[in-house]
Amino acid sequence: MAYELYYWDGLQGRGEFVRLALEDAGADYVDVVRGAKKDGQGMGAMTKIIESKSEPQIPYAPPFLKDGELIVPHVANILLYLGPRLGLAPKDEGQRYVANGLQLTIADMVTEVHDTHHPLASGLYYEDQKDAAKARAKDFIDNRIPKFMGYFERVLKQNPHGDKHMITDKTTYVDLSIFQLVEGLHYAFPRATKKFVKQYPRVQALHDAVLERPNIAGYVDSERRIPFNESGIFRHYPELDQDA
Amino acid sequence: MAYELYYWDGLQGRGEFVRLALEDAGADYVDVVRGAKKDGQGMGAMTKIIESKSEPQIPYAPPFLKDGELIVPHVANILLYLGPRLGLAPKDEGQRYVANGLQLTIADMVTEVHDTHHPLASGLYYEDQKDAAKARAKDFIDNRIPKFMGYFERVLKQNPHGDKHMITDKTTYVDLSIFQLVEGLHYAFPRATKKFVKQYPRVQALHDAVLERPNIAGYVDSERRIPFNESGIFRHYPELDQDA
Repeated sequence: MAYELYYWDGLQGRGEFVRLALEDAGADYVDVVRGAKKDGQGMGAMTKIIESKSEPQIPYAPPFLKDGELIVPHVANILLYLGPRLGLAPKDEGQRYVANGLQLTIADMVTEVHDTHHPLASGLYYEDQKDAAKARAKDFIDNRIPKFMGYFERVLKQNPHGDKHMITDKTTYVDLSIFQLVEGLHYAFPRATKKFVKQYPRVQALHDAVLERPNIAGYVDSERRIPFNESGIFRHYPELDQDA
Repeated sequence: MAYELYYWDGLQGRGEFVRLALEDAGADYVDVVRGAKKDGQGMGAMTKIIESKSEPQIPYAPPFLKDGELIVPHVANILLYLGPRLGLAPKDEGQRYVANGLQLTIADMVTEVHDTHHPLASGLYYEDQKDAAKARAKDFIDNRIPKFMGYFERVLKQNPHGDKHMITDKTTYVDLSIFQLVEGLHYAFPRATKKFVKQYPRVQALHDAVLERPNIAGYVDSERRIPFNESGIFRHYPELDQDA
């Protein structure tokens, strides 16, 4: 049975980290909200689960994955679940916790990316918190990007199996998520990321290598890949960007 | 061998969610940073791991758990790892992903609590971002507390095994974390949480029930429990609080 991914239509957002794993593995999945109402899909199918008054496994928010009767919410949790099933997780059980830890650090950085344009309230328009956004984005570029990216660079450098992968000597979902993170940062902050090749050579090289994987290259060129836009997590507002 | 918990001394912070699980289970653990240098503990022992130039499993930040050679970072990940070992996780494997999803929603709320006093930059003093903090805290009380707490209340209500636990009919680490979350919210926002008993009766009742568990009651009264203070996640700044 196909995996069912539930996420907003019209943006990459957090759902994209899951899509990349499913696409890389060539898995059978349905992007439910983007499907047709007549097939029992579309936005209504997602709302039905989130607002259910009887479902015991209510997700707090999208994305969530449905595999048969099981509902798995949160990106890192979905990837933890899918990883071994898609051949994208370390074989060793202990290392799966290390991979999950890396993914949770990526998740934390994604939340901070979101907060650069929404530092005061996720329910308010960007335009209504622009001054605070400028302050937060400046701190993000000055302090947070170096801290997170410097960390990921170290993880690659200190991987005893070589610096081509975040963990083990094989591609895992963590590598795919690093690709998406770097891709998004380049989109949102072209000035701040201009020197990534020099500053974080291993991270940038991992991004480039993932993009050459046949299934990822095919996906990124397909209509299934929604372009980055200003509804997602990674938004390009030139006034929030600066050289680094 | 004892579990080694690595976290800052002097504050409950994110480490407390792990401490509560270890304490409830009566597990053998060392709170490393609070230990003595002469025993190879203290702050230096934590710094050594975080700044290691050779360790393959570098944690991005505390808390992290060391179990033999394995290093597990991030609260939800640590609890995912410890849960089955401490008898505080669902028996069913699928339900463990549901529990992890709940824990990750708790983690998201904890991050939002932190951002009420640090909306612009975690590296700046609260005093230097007070106006933004007031705006963010107001939104947190008006919109985010109701959304998160309403969700947890629904999870309890819709638990097919009864509304005494977040998942299954037994105490899991998720219940313990709900206790800490509610405890922290009452400390930080006494006005905003004054009507919790009426607004979120099941969540408040779960908090109260956890506090009656002998090992938790004993721990909370012990010197091992650091009191809430303004270095932690939950800070009481009266100017950020309001009736709800």
